[in-house]
Amino acid sequence: MSTVNKTAHSFDKTRFEALLNRRFFYAPAFEIYGGVAGLYDYGPPGSALQANIIAEWRKHFIVEEHMLELDTTIMTPAPVFETSGHVARFADWMVKDTKTGDVLRADHLVKNVLEARLASDKEARGLAAQPPKEDEKDKKKKKKNVKAAPLQLADEIVEKYERILAKLDDYTGPELGDLCRKHALKNPDTGNEVTEPVQFNLMFASSIGPTGQHPGFLRPETAQGHFLNFSRLLEYNNGRVPFASAQIGRSFRNEISPRAGLLRVREFTMAEIEHFVDPADKSHAHFNDVRHVVLSLLDRHTQSAGRTEVRKMSVGEAVDTGVVANQTLGYFLARIYMFLLKIGINPERLRFRQHMANEMAHYATDCWDAEIQNSYGWTECVGCADRAAYDLSVHSAKTGHPLVVRQALKEPIVVEKEVPEFNKKNLGKKFLKDAAVVQQIIGDMDETQLLAVKAQLSQGSATIASSESEQRTFELTPDLLTIERKTLKQSVREFVPNVIEPSFGLGRILYALLEHSFWCREQDVERGVLSLPPLVAPTKVLIVPLSAKEEFDPLVAEVSTKLRRAGVFSRVDDSNTSIGKRYSRNDELGTPFGVTLDFASVANRTMTLRERDTLTQLIGDIDEVIKVVIELVEGSITWADACQRLPAYDGVQAID
Amino acid sequence: MSTVNKTAHSFDKTRFEALLNRRFFYAPAFEIYGGVAGLYDYGPPGSALQANIIAEWRKHFIVEEHMLELDTTIMTPAPVFETSGHVARFADWMVKDTKTGDVLRADHLVKNVLEARLASDKEARGLAAQPPKEDEKDKKKKKKNVKAAPLQLADEIVEKYERILAKLDDYTGPELGDLCRKHALKNPDTGNEVTEPVQFNLMFASSIGPTGQHPGFLRPETAQGHFLNFSRLLEYNNGRVPFASAQIGRSFRNEISPRAGLLRVREFTMAEIEHFVDPADKSHAHFNDVRHVVLSLLDRHTQSAGRTEVRKMSVGEAVDTGVVANQTLGYFLARIYMFLLKIGINPERLRFRQHMANEMAHYATDCWDAEIQNSYGWTECVGCADRAAYDLSVHSAKTGHPLVVRQALKEPIVVEKEVPEFNKKNLGKKFLKDAAVVQQIIGDMDETQLLAVKAQLSQGSATIASSESEQRTFELTPDLLTIERKTLKQSVREFVPNVIEPSFGLGRILYALLEHSFWCREQDVERGVLSLPPLVAPTKVLIVPLSAKEEFDPLVAEVSTKLRRAGVFSRVDDSNTSIGKRYSRNDELGTPFGVTLDFASVANRTMTLRERDTLTQLIGDIDEVIKVVIELVEGSITWADACQRLPAYDGVQAID
Repeated sequence: MSTVNKTAHSFDKTRFEALLNRRFFYAPAFEIYGGVAGLYDYGPPGSALQANIIAEWRKHFIVEEHMLELDTTIMTPAPVFETSGHVARFADWMVKDTKTGDVLRADHLVKNVLEARLASDKEARGLAAQPPKEDEKDKKKKKKNVKAAPLQLADEIVEKYERILAKLDDYTGPELGDLCRKHALKNPDTGNEVTEPVQFNLMFASSIGPTGQHPGFLRPETAQGHFLNFSRLLEYNNGRVPFASAQIGRSFRNEISPRAGLLRVREFTMAEIEHFVDPADKSHAHFNDVRHVVLSLLDRHTQSAGRTEVRKMSVGEAVDTGVVANQTLGYFLARIYMFLLKIGINPERLRFRQHMANEMAHYATDCWDAEIQNSYGWTECVGCADRAAYDLSVHSAKTGHPLVVRQALKEPIVVEKEVPEFNKKNLGKKFLKDAAVVQQIIGDMDETQLLAVKAQLSQGSATIASSESEQRTFELTPDLLTIERKTLKQSVREFVPNVIEPSFGLGRILYALLEHSFWCREQDVERGVLSLPPLVAPTKVLIVPLSAKEEFDPLVAEVSTKLRRAGVFSRVDDSNTSIGKRYSRNDELGTPFGVTLDFASVANRTMTLRERDTLTQLIGDIDEVIKVVIELVEGSITWADACQRLPAYDGVQAID
Repeated sequence: MSTVNKTAHSFDKTRFEALLNRRFFYAPAFEIYGGVAGLYDYGPPGSALQANIIAEWRKHFIVEEHMLELDTTIMTPAPVFETSGHVARFADWMVKDTKTGDVLRADHLVKNVLEARLASDKEARGLAAQPPKEDEKDKKKKKKNVKAAPLQLADEIVEKYERILAKLDDYTGPELGDLCRKHALKNPDTGNEVTEPVQFNLMFASSIGPTGQHPGFLRPETAQGHFLNFSRLLEYNNGRVPFASAQIGRSFRNEISPRAGLLRVREFTMAEIEHFVDPADKSHAHFNDVRHVVLSLLDRHTQSAGRTEVRKMSVGEAVDTGVVANQTLGYFLARIYMFLLKIGINPERLRFRQHMANEMAHYATDCWDAEIQNSYGWTECVGCADRAAYDLSVHSAKTGHPLVVRQALKEPIVVEKEVPEFNKKNLGKKFLKDAAVVQQIIGDMDETQLLAVKAQLSQGSATIASSESEQRTFELTPDLLTIERKTLKQSVREFVPNVIEPSFGLGRILYALLEHSFWCREQDVERGVLSLPPLVAPTKVLIVPLSAKEEFDPLVAEVSTKLRRAGVFSRVDDSNTSIGKRYSRNDELGTPFGVTLDFASVANRTMTLRERDTLTQLIGDIDEVIKVVIELVEGSITWADACQRLPAYDGVQAID
C-alpha cells in the first residue's frame, strides 16, 4: 500500500480557497451584482456536503436521542423578541472611523491592532512570527500602505497585550472604548481615530402585513420557536420531562462588518436542541455511556487569569469535580464531540471553552463553546448553554400562558402557608370595580408580604398599594380580609423546566471541516485533495468509463443502478479527458472511491477500485467490487480490509 | 382480512382540523402571543412528514435526474429584484373597506361574494347546495350577522357569475374594480363598499448592513439564486446543456390577508428546479419513458370559454397535438404527477391547469399548474412554467456578465454579415474620449441599422445618436468608419438557454395530502385515521410493549435496534394506557404498522403485527415479523403478501 504524507506541504490558504471556488463548494452570493458581504451561496458539492452533515446530525441527535423535531417560522413579530430581551440586548459594539465614517466592530478592531503589534514585535525580535490572521480584503487594503518597519515592544507591554487578547470576549463596550484610548488603537485601514463604541442591534427588521401594522424581525436563532411551542411539545411527550426538541433552519444576523468568509455571515443554517429538564435534577439517564469521553477543556478561571492552555479530562471527571456544572451539560459536550469527530473534524484542533461572565449571552447561566481551530484562529462552532428557566419564565410572564410542568407527586407534600380569604360581599361593596384590583395585589404577594399585611390587620387595618404607574393605595380591615396559616396537601408539583441548549453553526463546521480535510499530494503541490470521510463526502463513488463510447453504457448503467439501490450516491464522469484528470478533479471534490470500466470490464466483467488518499488500486469481479465499495462507504470495513479482499491492481491509467 | 370503508363518513373538516391540532402536525406560530395570520409552525409529526416528502423529492428529482443542488441566500439586495421585475410587478390587487379600512384581496372578494350568491341561489331553488367554502374566521364573523334569506337569481345572472369565476385569475386590477361596481360587490364582513383596487408588492423589505446602505428583500421564490449562479453551474456541468439545478428552501410572500390555513402563508418551504435547455431544441432524452402517463388537463382555451372540464390525455398525445408546448415541459408534468402519486395524492383529485394570458407571471411564456382538490377547492400546488430566456437575459443586460452557452459546432457555419471597421487613429483625433461612445453605438447596432449607416456613408456622411438620456449625435465619414459585407466562419454557437421551471409549494402539498389521507372508522366517527403511505409516514412502526414493566425492555431494545439498523424509523409507546388507545393515537399520526410485545413474546419470541387501515393482525417469530415489516415499509411487498407469509392473529387486545 502507498504511504500518504498529508503534511508534506503546509496549509496553503490561497490554493485551498482557489479549490473551493473552482469546484463551486460555495461562492459570494450575487457575485455578478458585485456581491454583498456576509452572504454566500452553496454550489452542488457544498450543498451535498451540507445535506450529508445535516442527515448525520439528524441521525446522531434526533433519531438516536428520540428528540421532537420542529420547523418554526423565521419571520417573528417584534413582541416576541422584546420579551426575550433580544431587542434590548442582542447587539454588538461598533465604532466609526472619525473621518471616513467606515464602521468597525470594536472588539475586532482591538484584536486586529494588538495582534499586528505583537507580530511586528516578534519580527523585530527576530522570532519566526506567524503572520497575523487577516483575510483577502484586509490584505488588499494594507498593500496600499507602505509596510511599517518592525517595532519591538517592551516586555511588559507584550504581556499586557496578551492578557487583553486572552479575555477579549469579556470586555463591555465602554471598556473597549477605554482600551482604544489607552493604547491608541486606530482604524488599521486608514490610521484615523475611531468614535466611542455604540451598540448596534444585529436583528434584521421588517414588517408583516399590507399596512405595516406588525413590526417583525428575522430570527437570530431558532430557539424562541421551541420555547413558544413548549406547552404543545410537553403534551406531545405525554406531559413528561426531560425531553428535547430539535430544529434545523435558517437564521439571520446583520453583522456589522463581516470579513471572515463562511465563519461570519449574515444568513446561516443552524441546528439547535432545547433540552427541557427538571431544575432540581439535571442528571442524564445515559451519562454513563459517555463518562469516559476525554475532552480538551479551557475553563473560565484559566482565561480570566489571562491564559489559554487546555486541560484534557474525561467528561465524568469534569462533572464530578464541578468543572462542568451538571451531567446533562456534560452529556451534550461529549455527544457534540463524538458528532464532530464522526464527520471528520480533527480532535487535536477541537477544544471546549467556557464563557466568561460578561461574555455570556443575556439568557445564559453557563456556556461552553466547541471551538475548532482553523486558519482564522479558534472559532466557536457549537455553543452549549444552560439557559436555565430564563426564556420560559419571561414568555410566561408576558403572555400569561403558563409554561410549566405539572408533576404528580408519589407522596403528597404537606406544607404550611399563609392563606388569604376575602369576604367578597363586603369587598365588593367597599371597592366596587376595584375589588378585583385588590384581590390581584394580595394574590401576587409572597409569604413575607402576606405576613406583613397580617400583622397590620391584627392592629386594625392594613394599607396596600397597586403596582400601576399611578400607584393607588387601598385600606383593608379584618371584615374584608383575613389571613390564616393553614396546612395544605400538595399532590402536584409545578415547575418551570430549565433548558440546556446545544446550538450548531453548520456553515462554520462545514468550513472548518474543509480546512481540516485539505492537503496537497507530496509529489505535486498543484494536486489538492479533500480527504472528506465517506459519511459526508458529496459523492461516494465516481464511475469512470474509459470513454463516452456506447459500448460502456450498459456496464455504467448496471454499476450505477446497483449502487443506487444500495443507497450509495455515485456520479458518472464520462467527460472527454484522461482518467487521471477525471480522478484529480474528484480528489478536489473529496470523492473517496472511484471505479474504472474499460475494455477488460466488457470482456471479463472486472473493475478496478481506487482509493483517494493512498491512490492504491484493487481489481476484481464487478459484483465483488460493488459489494466491497458498499461496505467501505457504510464504514463496515476499512481500506486495509478491502486490500485483503481484492488483489492489488498495478495498472497506470488512473495515476497519471 | 377486514374490509375497509374509508368513505363511510363524508369528510368532516372540523374533526380533521381538531386531529391535526391535537397531534401537533402544525399550529399557528406565536400562538401564545395571539398569533399572526399566515405564519405556522410544524410540530414533530408535521416536521417528520415534511422531511420525508423532501427526502423523496430529493431522490425522485435530484438523484434520479442528476440535478445540481444549490443552497442560496434568502436575503437579496434590491437591485436583483429590480432587474427581475419583481419590484415593479410582483404584486396583488387589494381593496380597502371604505369605512373600516380593512384590507382585502380584490380577487378573493369577488370570489367569496359571487360564490355566496350562487350558494344562496341554489338554496332558494331547493337544490342541495354545498355550503360555500369559508374558513373558521369567516364563519365567526358571519355568525354576528343575521343569516340572510336565500335569494334566487335570474338564470342569466347565474351563468354570468359562473363565467366570471371560471376565468377569475385572468382579470386585471381595473377589471376587478369594474366587477365590484357592476355587480355591487361589497365587503362581506361589513357590507361596506370598497375602494378601487391598488397594487401591493408582496415582498418583505429589510436592509442589509449597519448603516442601512443596502436595501434588500426576502426572496419570494428561490429561482433568482439559480439564475445568478448560472455561469458557475454551467462550468460545473462541463459547459453542456441541458442540465437542471434544484433547490429546497424557505421563501416569503407578504400576503394581503391570508386566511386559508397552510394553503396561503407568508413563509413557506418550496422546492424549485430550473432546467436550462437549448431554445432551439426542447426535446427531452427520457421523454419516451413517460409518454404513456395519462394526465387530466384543463387548457387555457377551455377556461377562456368559461368552462372547467378536464381532458384525460397521455403526455405523448398532449405534446404531439401541441396542447403542451414541448417535450421538456411534458416530461416534467409527468414526473410531477408520478411524484405526487408516490407520496399519496389521490389521482382523481389532481389536475393540470394551464395559465391564461393575463394570469401568467411576468416572466413566463407558458405555465401549467398541478392543482390538487381539497376542501378549499382546487389549489395550485406545483407550478411548471416556461420562463424562456427572460431571467438570464435581463440579469445579463443589467450586469454586463454574459449568461450564455457557447457550443462548439461540429460543422462551422458560414455567415455573411455587415462588419464595421474603424480607423481608430482618426476616430480618436476627432472625438477624443467620445471615441469609445461612438464605437459602442455602432457595436450595438443590428444588421438593419448598420445597412442604414452604410447607405448614409456612401452618400458622404452618417449621423448617429447616443442612447443617453441627453441624446448626443455624432457625424461619421468614410475616413473614420467603413462597413463591408464579409463572409465569416462561426465555429462556436452562442445562445441564452431557456428555462423550464417546476416549482413546488411543499406546505400546500403536505396539507392536501393530509386531507386526502383522512377518514374515520366506519364503526366510530370519533376514531380518525390518516392513511399516509409508509414512504412518508412520520413513524413507520409503533412498538407497543404490553406495559412499561422492565421485563419487556430487552425485547423493546432489540426490535427497536434491528429496525433502526435497517433504516426503518420506529417509536416506542410505553405510556400508561391501553394498547388499543395507543394504537388509536398512532392511527391519528398515520403510523402504518404496529408490533406488540407481550408475555408470549417473552416466553416464545412471538410478536403480533397490526396494519393501520384494515386493523388486521398477524403473528410470528420476532425476527420473521421484523423481516416482513421491513419489506412492507420498503414497499417491496404489500399487506396481502404479508398475510400469505404470516398467520392471522385473532387476539383482541389491539382492537378495543
